Amino acid sequence: MTDRQDYRFSSDNTAGICPEALAAPIEANSGRSAGYGHDAQTRRAVAQLRELFETDCEVAFVFSGTAANALSLSALCRGYQSIFCHEFAHVETGECAAPEFFSGGSKVIPVPGPGGKMHLAEFERALGRGRGFHFPKPGALSLAQSSDWGTLYHPDEIRALAAVAHGHGVGVHLDGARFANALAVWRERGPYSAAELTWRAGVDVLSLGGTKNGMLTAEAVVFFRKEFATDFELRVMQAGQLNSKMRFAAAQWSALLKDGAWLRHAAHANAMAAQLAAGLGSIPGLRLLTEAETNMVFIELSPAAAAAMHARGWRFFKFIGDHGYRLVCAWDTRPEDLQEFLSDLRRVITV
Amino acid sequence: MTDRQDYRFSSDNTAGICPEALAAPIEANSGRSAGYGHDAQTRRAVAQLRELFETDCEVAFVFSGTAANALSLSALCRGYQSIFCHEFAHVETGECAAPEFFSGGSKVIPVPGPGGKMHLAEFERALGRGRGFHFPKPGALSLAQSSDWGTLYHPDEIRALAAVAHGHGVGVHLDGARFANALAVWRERGPYSAAELTWRAGVDVLSLGGTKNGMLTAEAVVFFRKEFATDFELRVMQAGQLNSKMRFAAAQWSALLKDGAWLRHAAHANAMAAQLAAGLGSIPGLRLLTEAETNMVFIELSPAAAAAMHARGWRFFKFIGDHGYRLVCAWDTRPEDLQEFLSDLRRVITV
Amino acid sequence: MTDRQDYRFSSDNTAGICPEALAAPIEANSGRSAGYGHDAQTRRAVAQLRELFETDCEVAFVFSGTAANALSLSALCRGYQSIFCHEFAHVETGECAAPEFFSGGSKVIPVPGPGGKMHLAEFERALGRGRGFHFPKPGALSLAQSSDWGTLYHPDEIRALAAVAHGHGVGVHLDGARFANALAVWRERGPYSAAELTWRAGVDVLSLGGTKNGMLTAEAVVFFRKEFATDFELRVMQAGQLNSKMRFAAAQWSALLKDGAWLRHAAHANAMAAQLAAGLGSIPGLRLLTEAETNMVFIELSPAAAAAMHARGWRFFKFIGDHGYRLVCAWDTRPEDLQEFLSDLRRVITV
Amino acid sequence: MTDRQDYRFSSDNTAGICPEALAAPIEANSGRSAGYGHDAQTRRAVAQLRELFETDCEVAFVFSGTAANALSLSALCRGYQSIFCHEFAHVETGECAAPEFFSGGSKVIPVPGPGGKMHLAEFERALGRGRGFHFPKPGALSLAQSSDWGTLYHPDEIRALAAVAHGHGVGVHLDGARFANALAVWRERGPYSAAELTWRAGVDVLSLGGTKNGMLTAEAVVFFRKEFATDFELRVMQAGQLNSKMRFAAAQWSALLKDGAWLRHAAHANAMAAQLAAGLGSIPGLRLLTEAETNMVFIELSPAAAAAMHARGWRFFKFIGDHGYRLVCAWDTRPEDLQEFLSDLRRVITV
Repeated sequence: MTDRQDYRFSSDNTAGICPEALAAPIEANSGRSAGYGHDAQTRRAVAQLRELFETDCEVAFVFSGTAANALSLSALCRGYQSIFCHEFAHVETGECAAPEFFSGGSKVIPVPGPGGKMHLAEFERALGRGRGFHFPKPGALSLAQSSDWGTLYHPDEIRALAAVAHGHGVGVHLDGARFANALAVWRERGPYSAAELTWRAGVDVLSLGGTKNGMLTAEAVVFFRKEFATDFELRVMQAGQLNSKMRFAAAQWSALLKDGAWLRHAAHANAMAAQLAAGLGSIPGLRLLTEAETNMVFIELSPAAAAAMHARGWRFFKFIGDHGYRLVCAWDTRPEDLQEFLSDLRRVITV
Repeated sequence: MTDRQDYRFSSDNTAGICPEALAAPIEANSGRSAGYGHDAQTRRAVAQLRELFETDCEVAFVFSGTAANALSLSALCRGYQSIFCHEFAHVETGECAAPEFFSGGSKVIPVPGPGGKMHLAEFERALGRGRGFHFPKPGALSLAQSSDWGTLYHPDEIRALAAVAHGHGVGVHLDGARFANALAVWRERGPYSAAELTWRAGVDVLSLGGTKNGMLTAEAVVFFRKEFATDFELRVMQAGQLNSKMRFAAAQWSALLKDGAWLRHAAHANAMAAQLAAGLGSIPGLRLLTEAETNMVFIELSPAAAAAMHARGWRFFKFIGDHGYRLVCAWDTRPEDLQEFLSDLRRVITV
Repeated sequence: MTDRQDYRFSSDNTAGICPEALAAPIEANSGRSAGYGHDAQTRRAVAQLRELFETDCEVAFVFSGTAANALSLSALCRGYQSIFCHEFAHVETGECAAPEFFSGGSKVIPVPGPGGKMHLAEFERALGRGRGFHFPKPGALSLAQSSDWGTLYHPDEIRALAAVAHGHGVGVHLDGARFANALAVWRERGPYSAAELTWRAGVDVLSLGGTKNGMLTAEAVVFFRKEFATDFELRVMQAGQLNSKMRFAAAQWSALLKDGAWLRHAAHANAMAAQLAAGLGSIPGLRLLTEAETNMVFIELSPAAAAAMHARGWRFFKFIGDHGYRLVCAWDTRPEDLQEFLSDLRRVITV
Repeated sequence: MTDRQDYRFSSDNTAGICPEALAAPIEANSGRSAGYGHDAQTRRAVAQLRELFETDCEVAFVFSGTAANALSLSALCRGYQSIFCHEFAHVETGECAAPEFFSGGSKVIPVPGPGGKMHLAEFERALGRGRGFHFPKPGALSLAQSSDWGTLYHPDEIRALAAVAHGHGVGVHLDGARFANALAVWRERGPYSAAELTWRAGVDVLSLGGTKNGMLTAEAVVFFRKEFATDFELRVMQAGQLNSKMRFAAAQWSALLKDGAWLRHAAHANAMAAQLAAGLGSIPGLRLLTEAETNMVFIELSPAAAAAMHARGWRFFKFIGDHGYRLVCAWDTRPEDLQEFLSDLRRVITV
């Protein structure tokens, strides 16, 4: 047993800050400027995001992904309404009931679907749940792109789900904690743009992740339907999420968007995950649980194998069922990290 | 009229990041480590804070001062209870009802007192408000050190207020957004230590400010009475305030505590404010509204003078009554800033 | 000292149920009907209320006045907004922060004014409180008719306050726990109708009291601006305020509205209070604190006199300052009750 | 198609008020007494309930079953905690997210189990859900006796579930909206007493239903573990659930408990349901979905049969899956009601 605690594959949150994000505050640190986002740097970052999404969206910066999601959802739905998300969505499983808290009691309704993605028929069925005023009224649909299983929604899938949602008066939220990882794939595959993945497919509000891409406390909330942004600054303030020194968050976005570092980091993480998946696929008896479309790989490990890897210091989490583990690559994953992990795993499984 | 927007005296939030805080994340950025504060860097910062306060306190790091206050208060009081604070406290006037929101509906009861400080007899009177179950039951006392008018509570004043609070089963919170500015004074004057200003005087929970001292999204919540810290991590998570990359916040605290930069910056800000006050005092006809004990100066300006300063680009806020303005110094205030401001003001007032 | 606990003047809530309200459930108790207000009896009561108010208002029945107020206000304002009411309004002093709880954290801002009535200039001043997003945005104005000091707003006073409110995008709520008492006066004095006292003067939502008029758990919420009634049934359900056997509440309203018993009871209570005030006025050295316009009288008593009355069994509450007591008449107050009270008081004061 | 809307089997809420409950307020209506439950009548009812449960429990009266449940649960668990209940429990399906609202955001976690009853192993499994602070911490277990499918928990089943709950620091709530129906069975079958069905089996708080037993807005909350009752009056007040004229609710409880009417009504409803079930069982091709242990019967109907019954005026609700309907008997169900319903159903099914 080792004392080593190796978090290289446990989460994209365990990675450090990417060089561009680290340099940005230094550059932004000249003199004084207005607080709370009323500064030139923030205006610049907002302009860059509008350019990225090719629309005059409203943008707010908050501190964490959980806050970005919960505040977005509270703008879409009231306490007596419901939020639909995939049963394995972060909003349901990873945020300690933040959506319920921020919205004043709304009910989060988990919807099943293969591959970590919401199934259209299951969503329609879930919309029909409950009898009249005895049950919360549908308020918001929350999808994740890429999903919490690292899989991707085709723009047409989002469009179909969003159309059903809108048909029921339900607003559409996209949890884009790993939106960059998704976009990096889709602009090759489609190609599809950021706009085509979001508002052109029916997304009303996007939580746009910075943290998992290498930034420090710099999540963005992007409103494509402006009526949902009404009084959002007050909501953010009351939640203790209004950054008094917002220019330093905005500067990171500016730096990463400027020359494409944002997508480059995401593409790198995706590529590392693909290599990892390939390596894992070559280990006899090892089962991959999903297709590694973005930066995460899910494998099945026996209790013995998991314990042995743990004893060698590796830290990674059980995510699916009783034996499904998640491995995450990030902007800083190196080929040698993959080799070390695979070599340890090969040893452990052979034994 | 100029286009210049000069925020040099509008708030300590408009200042940038101090060199130590800027360097800290770079140093902490080697490799991967556990997220959410379960890392060595966070343990180190917590140990340093325990040393500073000479007690085995519980420490959490959150993103903003508003969150630090509101989460602390929600740990002290339930939704059907009340929070007592000075009528000009940030908790009452500057946080968009965050305490009410986080605690699930508690009532914030403003208490008067001269110089921005709560008066003991007024607090006792406020405790007697309401008839039985018709009115929220007293839950928390929130004091600010230094106060929102830049004034200071003597440890004995805190002790007296805390004793009354505890006698009514009321927990004591200290808003220490500018605790460093207060400590920098008291360790000269008393001398009094951080412990003597807090738990030894009866404080149960402290919001310990980093932002106004030059840090980036790194506020600390320090629990001196551990029972209030129960499940605090869950509360912080649900509020979207749990920093997944907490080591970078903790590293800033480590860096600033290590060699005393924290107090050095605060003392500098205080000294600049004293110089500013002296300069203002020498302007005929100008009235200082409070004694400048820490880093803030409050002056009375005629509408004409205020407008003229505004026209010259200076941005600062009205805080007291109809003509009372606040001027704030920070770690980065330079003597030449004072000279420029005073020279403009002299010109404006003479005219 | 007696063991007697005499609540005849302590509150209109200590009165029993009036004969019409007592008979109504018996009459409504034939067979089964739809629950939750979807029954013929409820439709009939709603129709009667629409006739009373001469408009196609939306009506909901809830259990208590506190719920009627808090749910109304939560329909007018969000958690990051503020509610303005008189500093001695029930909403501020008597409901244990229910408005804060139901709305998800809104701030109740007390506004002064003589005679228990909000002063227009003070309201305008209160609307100007706070700096931007640092302070809750004005959301609702709550007036009480009759006021908690038993005084009355002239329709023109309501109109002036409502106009200012609407000019700031603020909805207008009227706490009509004692609306019948007010209407009984105004339809003589003006004469002014129920419509002229409410929506024609700018009221958007009315809490219409039944309890203080002799009913049992049958408060009505009347929406004159229908957009505020959106989803109100869900809100009421989530609050546990949706009466599954609503027909029995509605039947009481029908019975009391049918032949004017509602106003007759209120007028009786008012007349008794006038007699009480006259009797009190004839006691040398006794000071009345307000004009007894409706069913409440406020007097100043020395501690000795108050204690002596208490010793004789009388129970009534301190309401104003240190020595101001409230005496309340109701539908069941009898001339002999007045005589007994006055005779005891005369004895006590003479001594 | 008829215009008739026949609610005789749709819910026990569509029944009227039983004679004892109707008479009680008339008897209690003499003179004035203290409001808000501080009266002799309320003390008497509380004493009777303590006698029934053979323990010094704390009792509060609220207006509705939803409020009784949600307020009880908010006393057991905080907003960052979770509530476990059966997936078809009223708390989950019938209260419009009231538990989430009252507790400030808690997550209600549905647990499966046959016959509408929670399965022990499934509960244990549900307790293990979530990873650390990412998921709400277990706070409360809510069982229903009788269950929402009309089935019964044996005291030993409750004991086993409660033991697991307590082992995890989780409080135990019993939704007893139909507790009388359950007790009426168990005191024959065991015999088991009210105490044996509740606190002796590990129940900490009971929502004790009056409404479904023939009362009017008179639900009781019974705390067997007194620490959970701390400040409950404030919580009830803030929720607008504190009955100012509580004596009229208490009087109903007194009247129904005095001579056993409470259990007699419940036993009658149970007997009617047994007869209904027997009658339904004799219709060829008709399937009963559960054993009719108390006052509810669940049957499967084809869409055609359901529509035909609807056309004949019968109103009853779909409860289980796509074709499972609920039929409810109450204190006022008469043998001829059964005959009419069965005769219509026979006609409809034969066709």
